[in-house]
Amino acid sequence: MGNRLKWKVFAALSIGSLLIPGVNVVNADIDQVSIKPKTHVLKANSENVRWGNIGKGEAVLTVNSGDIVTVDAITHHSGDDYERMIKGDAGVEDIFHWTESEKTEADRGPGVHIMTGPIAVEGAEPGDVLEVKILDMKLRPNGNGEYAGKTYGSNVAANWGFLYGEMEEEPVTREVVTIYEMDSEGGTDYAKALYSYRWTPQTDPDGNVHPTIDYPGVVVDHTTVEENHNVLKDVRVPVRLHFGTMSVAPKEADIVDSVPPSYYGGNIDDWRVTEGATMYYPVSVPGALLSIGDPHAGQGDSELNGTAIETSVTGDVQIILHKKDKLDNKLKSLNFPLLENENEWVVHGFSYANHLEELGEDAQKEIFDKSSLDKAMKDAAHKTKAFLIRGMELTEDEAYSLMSVTTDFGVTQVVDGNWGVHAIIDKKLFGDAERSMTPLRSSFEQFGAKIEWEPNTKMVSILYNGNTLSAKIGETKAAFNGETVRLIAPIQLNAQKSAEVSEYFVDFYQAKLSKTN
Amino acid sequence: MGNRLKWKVFAALSIGSLLIPGVNVVNADIDQVSIKPKTHVLKANSENVRWGNIGKGEAVLTVNSGDIVTVDAITHHSGDDYERMIKGDAGVEDIFHWTESEKTEADRGPGVHIMTGPIAVEGAEPGDVLEVKILDMKLRPNGNGEYAGKTYGSNVAANWGFLYGEMEEEPVTREVVTIYEMDSEGGTDYAKALYSYRWTPQTDPDGNVHPTIDYPGVVVDHTTVEENHNVLKDVRVPVRLHFGTMSVAPKEADIVDSVPPSYYGGNIDDWRVTEGATMYYPVSVPGALLSIGDPHAGQGDSELNGTAIETSVTGDVQIILHKKDKLDNKLKSLNFPLLENENEWVVHGFSYANHLEELGEDAQKEIFDKSSLDKAMKDAAHKTKAFLIRGMELTEDEAYSLMSVTTDFGVTQVVDGNWGVHAIIDKKLFGDAERSMTPLRSSFEQFGAKIEWEPNTKMVSILYNGNTLSAKIGETKAAFNGETVRLIAPIQLNAQKSAEVSEYFVDFYQAKLSKTN
Repeated sequence: MGNRLKWKVFAALSIGSLLIPGVNVVNADIDQVSIKPKTHVLKANSENVRWGNIGKGEAVLTVNSGDIVTVDAITHHSGDDYERMIKGDAGVEDIFHWTESEKTEADRGPGVHIMTGPIAVEGAEPGDVLEVKILDMKLRPNGNGEYAGKTYGSNVAANWGFLYGEMEEEPVTREVVTIYEMDSEGGTDYAKALYSYRWTPQTDPDGNVHPTIDYPGVVVDHTTVEENHNVLKDVRVPVRLHFGTMSVAPKEADIVDSVPPSYYGGNIDDWRVTEGATMYYPVSVPGALLSIGDPHAGQGDSELNGTAIETSVTGDVQIILHKKDKLDNKLKSLNFPLLENENEWVVHGFSYANHLEELGEDAQKEIFDKSSLDKAMKDAAHKTKAFLIRGMELTEDEAYSLMSVTTDFGVTQVVDGNWGVHAIIDKKLFGDAERSMTPLRSSFEQFGAKIEWEPNTKMVSILYNGNTLSAKIGETKAAFNGETVRLIAPIQLNAQKSAEVSEYFVDFYQAKLSKTN
Repeated sequence: MGNRLKWKVFAALSIGSLLIPGVNVVNADIDQVSIKPKTHVLKANSENVRWGNIGKGEAVLTVNSGDIVTVDAITHHSGDDYERMIKGDAGVEDIFHWTESEKTEADRGPGVHIMTGPIAVEGAEPGDVLEVKILDMKLRPNGNGEYAGKTYGSNVAANWGFLYGEMEEEPVTREVVTIYEMDSEGGTDYAKALYSYRWTPQTDPDGNVHPTIDYPGVVVDHTTVEENHNVLKDVRVPVRLHFGTMSVAPKEADIVDSVPPSYYGGNIDDWRVTEGATMYYPVSVPGALLSIGDPHAGQGDSELNGTAIETSVTGDVQIILHKKDKLDNKLKSLNFPLLENENEWVVHGFSYANHLEELGEDAQKEIFDKSSLDKAMKDAAHKTKAFLIRGMELTEDEAYSLMSVTTDFGVTQVVDGNWGVHAIIDKKLFGDAERSMTPLRSSFEQFGAKIEWEPNTKMVSILYNGNTLSAKIGETKAAFNGETVRLIAPIQLNAQKSAEVSEYFVDFYQAKLSKTN
């Protein structure tokens, strides 16, 4: 109670003229020890989600800068295997509930994703930048006792896939669903294909027939499909959980298709949007209006067949507001979704940097006819050069040379209308300027954490707000509240044999330790 | 002498009906200990190179399958700084020699690269596959005593760069050369920019003026340019040496522009074509006719401004011929340059899979008007699916799903006419099937190496043919003949506390240890 009170006092201050963006929220030069962000919980149910729309709308939650939200994100592909992905999970059952007479999520469209939110951020205004740190991501256990301990995901070779109609075998326009199985508790770090089936025309509760996958949330009648359980038998797919779609609301339209990504984020489908990563979005509507959904358990750059391993996930995110008059050089005039992690900056380019503005009134339809990697590459190249000039204070000639000799450009996706190319900038190029190391002890003690050091085992523990992170020097395997986790980077010993970590590491784990359980 | 004699006997056998492709050359069930591949040396001089052409031609060297070649590869950008990249280096001076009355490499074109070779491979015929293992790559020290211990490289923001004409600052069509400096001995593992200058019209010894970079090997008159020594001051570019251009000769044309890559390899410009990697090329002319050049010290995926850090390198490669009737599933019907390393298979796609065939008579000109990442992505996607079906024995549906949930597609380059997209397939997905571990001792002893084990330091040494590789268990830092090298993977201890490595590791280091110094 005491903490919450103090937090409220601080929050009130922060919203006014004293607002301190970013990590300063907790590092600010006032009663530091007592200031902790509030932790909110946003459960999966029909009240808390919208289906296919990431536009403006009534917030389901309002947070202050620095707050943490535990957010359930549910896959829109759960209907591909009702038994394993919906049954017995009250929240998911509520979202998918659809009978002849009732449909809880009646308004599905124009996109497909189940988006939790929107979350309003107190004081956010157009021109600000919203930072979202992904502190944790966990598979959501399925609710059917018959499959206890497992989480399932669906990969669909869909009609919007890159090779649809160009397969070698007939029918070349087939749609194929592959169900993958994972250990909910992370006991194994891979997914295995369980079975696959070819999509057959499915009749929804309203009596409409779907010969192809053209509407989200249709529950597949498994008496109409043939399950092939002999699929990818000896193959293990590494689980790398990420949010396919995370977005602020754009200003250009009220109802916004969740499928094409754009300057506001959305369905970027970059597997790097994972635990340990931070996203920065340009705010263009009051409150920012953050929506989170489309969780994935595994995807390659390109998302070739139209989908990832689509599964359900619960994540912890910290939401930080950067006011427009206090933006640093990297965030000033940010006009695209920018990713940061321990080692990299990732710039996201698209066929159209802002398709809503560039393509006019019918933008949301036309974008699907204008997909092009050539355009996305051009967009990514220009944005990366501008980012290096602005953020790293290089001349244009320096930036252009450096990009050519170091920056890896990759194909983010070729299936979401507004195709994506991303550019990966290695922080190490810039030495201390981009990845400065800092003493572990003083950095964490500064905000009130307690450090314990066990010299025999070389084990460091950081205790804060009832949470404990323990790790051995030099190792990435660690424990968070007793549970095995992977650190974003190992704790290092410097020349003076003193433990040190990056500033990014401090910010990240400070946030993770700040969660109130 | 003894070894050479035995080798000749074996070579004679191998060329006939007993030819044993691949590693079997040295693992064959005959006098294994004595069979060692021959090591050839191909020095940089005007006799051993062609400028801009990777087509058919008279071989400068003929090798047997299994032979190792130490090959000098010289950058065509050496003229960007004569003092640091040509002067005092007899071989490079010979290649670049051009006065009013003399030009040693008169025939420069249609491409730009200085290609060492061609190397003919005894017994190679159309339909075979040529494997090239890159055993070692080292920077070539510059020959000017004034700059002893350094190697220089040139990065050029060129007229064929991706953002040429679209720069923010005027003149938007400028060409800028940045000279990078490196430690020749690898004492540092990064390059630093030394200075840059804007290209000015250069007059060649024949009196022709080059207002733009339109002809290879023009030596820049530094009294006509303004050097800016305040460039990328605090930036360190990791050195990752690779061959930008490595190629067999295609059958479709006699003179072949070295710039556009294609099914035969060529100017792929993938930085993964580095020490530790293996390339596989479809042979389409008798003798295969391998050319090697265009060495790079650093390049990002896309090679955005038109060039990498273009420098000179000496490499060791092992050349292995796989006869068409004994190809395994991965190499059967190979129709593109395929890369393998310890952890990955990399498929290379292009705007046109075989532009020479697809675009007809004027293909070598037309390809530059038909560059497209969209086409390259399609080509890479089809090739990757076919490779997974053929090589990993998956069904089409399995392959397509697996690609979507795991395979990363990246932009290889957007500056070489036939633009490239590559796909990275992680061997670990397939467990033992693609990355099987094998006991270190017996695997190396099998071909006659001696293993020494120092239990206190956990140091393993492998001795063969006068070469010694020493490494600690679990570490990638190692010593090869006393020189520090980085292993392609650490030696591991298995559950029985016995040292083990991958089969790829064994093949690679067996070849590296087989070099005769």
